[in-house]
Amino acid sequence: MEVIKGKSVFGGIVIGKIAFYKKSNEKIKRYKVDKPEEEVTRFDNAKQTALLQLDELYKKALTEVGEANAAIVQVHQMMIEDLDYLDSIKNIILTQGVNAEYAVGVTGDNFSQMFSTMEDEYMKERAADVLDISNRIVRVLNKEEDGRFKLTEPVIIAADDLAPSETIQLDKNMVLSFITRQGSTNSHTAILARTMNIPAVIGIGEELKQEYDGKYAIIDGFTGTIYIEPEENVLKEMEVKKKQDEEKKILLQKLRGQENITIDGKKINIYANIGNSTDIGAVLKNDAGGIGLFRSEFLYLEKDTFPTEDEQFAIYKYVAESMAGKKVIIRTLDIGADKQVGYFDLPLEENPALGYRAIRICLTVKDIFKTQLRALYRASAYGNIAIMFPMITSLEEVKEIKEIIQEVKAELAETGIDFKDNLELGIMIETPAAVMISDLLAKEVDFFSIGTNDLTQYTLAIDRQNPKLDKFYNPHHPAILRMIQLTADNAHKNGKWIGICGELAGDLSLTETFLKMGIDELSVSPGLVLGLRNKVRESDVSKILKNW
Amino acid sequence: MEVIKGKSVFGGIVIGKIAFYKKSNEKIKRYKVDKPEEEVTRFDNAKQTALLQLDELYKKALTEVGEANAAIVQVHQMMIEDLDYLDSIKNIILTQGVNAEYAVGVTGDNFSQMFSTMEDEYMKERAADVLDISNRIVRVLNKEEDGRFKLTEPVIIAADDLAPSETIQLDKNMVLSFITRQGSTNSHTAILARTMNIPAVIGIGEELKQEYDGKYAIIDGFTGTIYIEPEENVLKEMEVKKKQDEEKKILLQKLRGQENITIDGKKINIYANIGNSTDIGAVLKNDAGGIGLFRSEFLYLEKDTFPTEDEQFAIYKYVAESMAGKKVIIRTLDIGADKQVGYFDLPLEENPALGYRAIRICLTVKDIFKTQLRALYRASAYGNIAIMFPMITSLEEVKEIKEIIQEVKAELAETGIDFKDNLELGIMIETPAAVMISDLLAKEVDFFSIGTNDLTQYTLAIDRQNPKLDKFYNPHHPAILRMIQLTADNAHKNGKWIGICGELAGDLSLTETFLKMGIDELSVSPGLVLGLRNKVRESDVSKILKNW
Repeated sequence: MEVIKGKSVFGGIVIGKIAFYKKSNEKIKRYKVDKPEEEVTRFDNAKQTALLQLDELYKKALTEVGEANAAIVQVHQMMIEDLDYLDSIKNIILTQGVNAEYAVGVTGDNFSQMFSTMEDEYMKERAADVLDISNRIVRVLNKEEDGRFKLTEPVIIAADDLAPSETIQLDKNMVLSFITRQGSTNSHTAILARTMNIPAVIGIGEELKQEYDGKYAIIDGFTGTIYIEPEENVLKEMEVKKKQDEEKKILLQKLRGQENITIDGKKINIYANIGNSTDIGAVLKNDAGGIGLFRSEFLYLEKDTFPTEDEQFAIYKYVAESMAGKKVIIRTLDIGADKQVGYFDLPLEENPALGYRAIRICLTVKDIFKTQLRALYRASAYGNIAIMFPMITSLEEVKEIKEIIQEVKAELAETGIDFKDNLELGIMIETPAAVMISDLLAKEVDFFSIGTNDLTQYTLAIDRQNPKLDKFYNPHHPAILRMIQLTADNAHKNGKWIGICGELAGDLSLTETFLKMGIDELSVSPGLVLGLRNKVRESDVSKILKNW
Repeated sequence: MEVIKGKSVFGGIVIGKIAFYKKSNEKIKRYKVDKPEEEVTRFDNAKQTALLQLDELYKKALTEVGEANAAIVQVHQMMIEDLDYLDSIKNIILTQGVNAEYAVGVTGDNFSQMFSTMEDEYMKERAADVLDISNRIVRVLNKEEDGRFKLTEPVIIAADDLAPSETIQLDKNMVLSFITRQGSTNSHTAILARTMNIPAVIGIGEELKQEYDGKYAIIDGFTGTIYIEPEENVLKEMEVKKKQDEEKKILLQKLRGQENITIDGKKINIYANIGNSTDIGAVLKNDAGGIGLFRSEFLYLEKDTFPTEDEQFAIYKYVAESMAGKKVIIRTLDIGADKQVGYFDLPLEENPALGYRAIRICLTVKDIFKTQLRALYRASAYGNIAIMFPMITSLEEVKEIKEIIQEVKAELAETGIDFKDNLELGIMIETPAAVMISDLLAKEVDFFSIGTNDLTQYTLAIDRQNPKLDKFYNPHHPAILRMIQLTADNAHKNGKWIGICGELAGDLSLTETFLKMGIDELSVSPGLVLGLRNKVRESDVSKILKNW
């Protein structure tokens, strides 16, 4: 048994097999192996699989594009069996004692280069083919399909760190837990774990070794401990702990249907954040009063091209109908920064977090924005939808958005499409600029929702994903609490309501502070709703002292 | 004549030759040439120059390290003359019709790879040598010396954009003007131009063609216009404009020795920002009341290793003495983000502007910080030095700094070194966090200085160097003005003074606003001091309406 530690981001006990996440199109790594012969066997198996894939492909190509075009698949099959090619791969594995992926990659590169320098045009063209077949074998070795990481059984995902675009492609039903070398408690891996209510341990560092791939482990999400190939007594102990946790969750379930009300009678709305329409089940199960943040970007992240108006409409309508009259606050597209989508063709930036993202993209490429707004207004006829705009910094932006909405409504009205005219329109307060002019912004919108993650990152000038700055990062910084208070006061002076939808909303050590500030709504991961309700019901606002 | 346009960042007329900046160790670009034979000649000349350089090097090595060690230089000379090597380069130029740099680079890489795979250990070692000689020839082709871009006559520097680490290596006496394809009006190129009082035009885009290299041009820094190979009538017109500008500057010189006082008797200090001890001349010439921001990082940027305590002491003492009792506010090391220094070995970061920089480095690697503080306290005995700390976000940081200062003072006292005990200690207010807790910070320090560039970038969540965001960037954003007012009020309530040292300090459209706010000091580029004095003397605070 080996024991390693990291920072926990969500409690719970999990027992399962570790699977290392393989990045698509990742640069192939070279590493030494103890038993090169086993790598040769791995390669031989992968080669057979690749040949079978090509058989399938050939049959498909025959019916779809005809024999002449299908012939290229046969060329690939012949190339895979080429003796020089096979010799080169096996030689590299055995003489250097390295992994099969590396040997295949290097051989592919070398052969490709060789072909490309040949005079003969036919041979020249084979340069791309030999790269193709090498990539195919590497994909098989990496258990990838179509360049994507696929899971066939529930596992503990291990990785350096995971980008949002990577987690989006994971089959969430197959993920028991995340354990990562890097990452901070506010990273997207952490947020995802909390949304999914699964234990996660991050910031483990190099202690999380590649060789754990495929081994059984216990994740203790309460203490951030990972037991690799656990001993019998640890296993028993953890099974007890797991049972206790489950019992506590059952207790919380008794709070379903209860009010979010403090001892002295102050009420607050507790809503849920969701990142996908499939999260609706968790929202209903945990009895959230509404959806406080629907991150619409999943619609874009999951696809290879822009989602159409109809595709979006169907999803928004589904969510609105499923929530049966409860409020559904949908945030418009928030990509850019660490959420990259290939087909948007976003520029590489020095500081993506301070870059071309969210509403800035929508107000630059207005067609994308208008498509989403049309879908949202069309769906508004089917439930209680409100729209929220991210990354606002100025009055001018809000006014421009309202002009575009007028255009959209006029177009819909002209074509006789049904929509709700007076949708609630709100903005995220997640830049210091928005906080400082919240008195002016409050006059223009119906509600505010504070995004504490970005607001903290900009206020402290600290990238929340950068582990090197943990010493300087204080999510409870008085500047943040004062900004929230200032914004709440400005909202209320103008008769508007204010919520918090960032991670801080679910931080139980701040619940009393937020109640005292007069926050009207807290929106949290579905799994935190009942715990937060419990905390509210134990609080007494009259006894809370203001110390920020 | 061709006419192109960009954004002006400093007025003035300049007539001179354009020189394209060549980046050191830049990835070699491949481009097609019309006359490959000329590239072969260029290569032959560069090869001869490289051989001469090696001759010199050999002589130097002989006397310094002896014959045995000098022999490697002879090996390099032989390798340059190797027929295979020369043939490869010339073949690539002539068959592909490309530039010499590319041919040398590719050949160097290929030969190096070939050597490195050889069994013979001696030949294996030649892999690095062939890269060395190829790099030497590329440097000669690029008119670089020791990997650095050198100028031999005053020119108009053209570039994509310039990083601070690049501008620091330029001989400023040889720079007439900057013209760049990218860049925003708040970029470092822009700041440098304003410090040097030279016209600059940025954001020109692809209109600024590589082929202008070496051509004569007129830069009109008032309108942002560039005339390539100007016609006679344009030349005449511009010469008139140039003369008028010079006359205006002479008029401003009459304000030397005058007070910075408004019509209704309100006084303000006008200090200068400097980035190097060589800027002192400009400070004195423009009659600044002191130095409001001495960017000490040039000491680190200019060197290949950490500047010693004695080296720093000498510079600080020189500046303090030169200013003869006037205040010299020295900001401690502010590197990281876009100011990179190789030997600090800073991590690559997703968002360097929100990263490991400035005081965060100093409070992590405390030896670097203590060395600077020792030098500063030692120099304090020779003039009116104050110390200012960048990128403060919390009270804890200020308290930690003060503890380190106590240690430094105790050490100096112990060794009997003279220093001033009660130096004024101030902090930059350049994060929204510092603004929001400025009431608490004011109790801990002697003064504030607002860094409007960074404060604006964090408040608006916009990288000021990102031209794609110009639509959303408003340096006069009401959030910024309110933050300055809030900070000024908190300073004054606690009996402390407040200055502004960011670019906004020199923005004459805001001078009256700052006077009304009660700002005590404005620190600007030396060349702006007299113009600002003029503006102050024309202002009447009693007539200014508060509208922020």
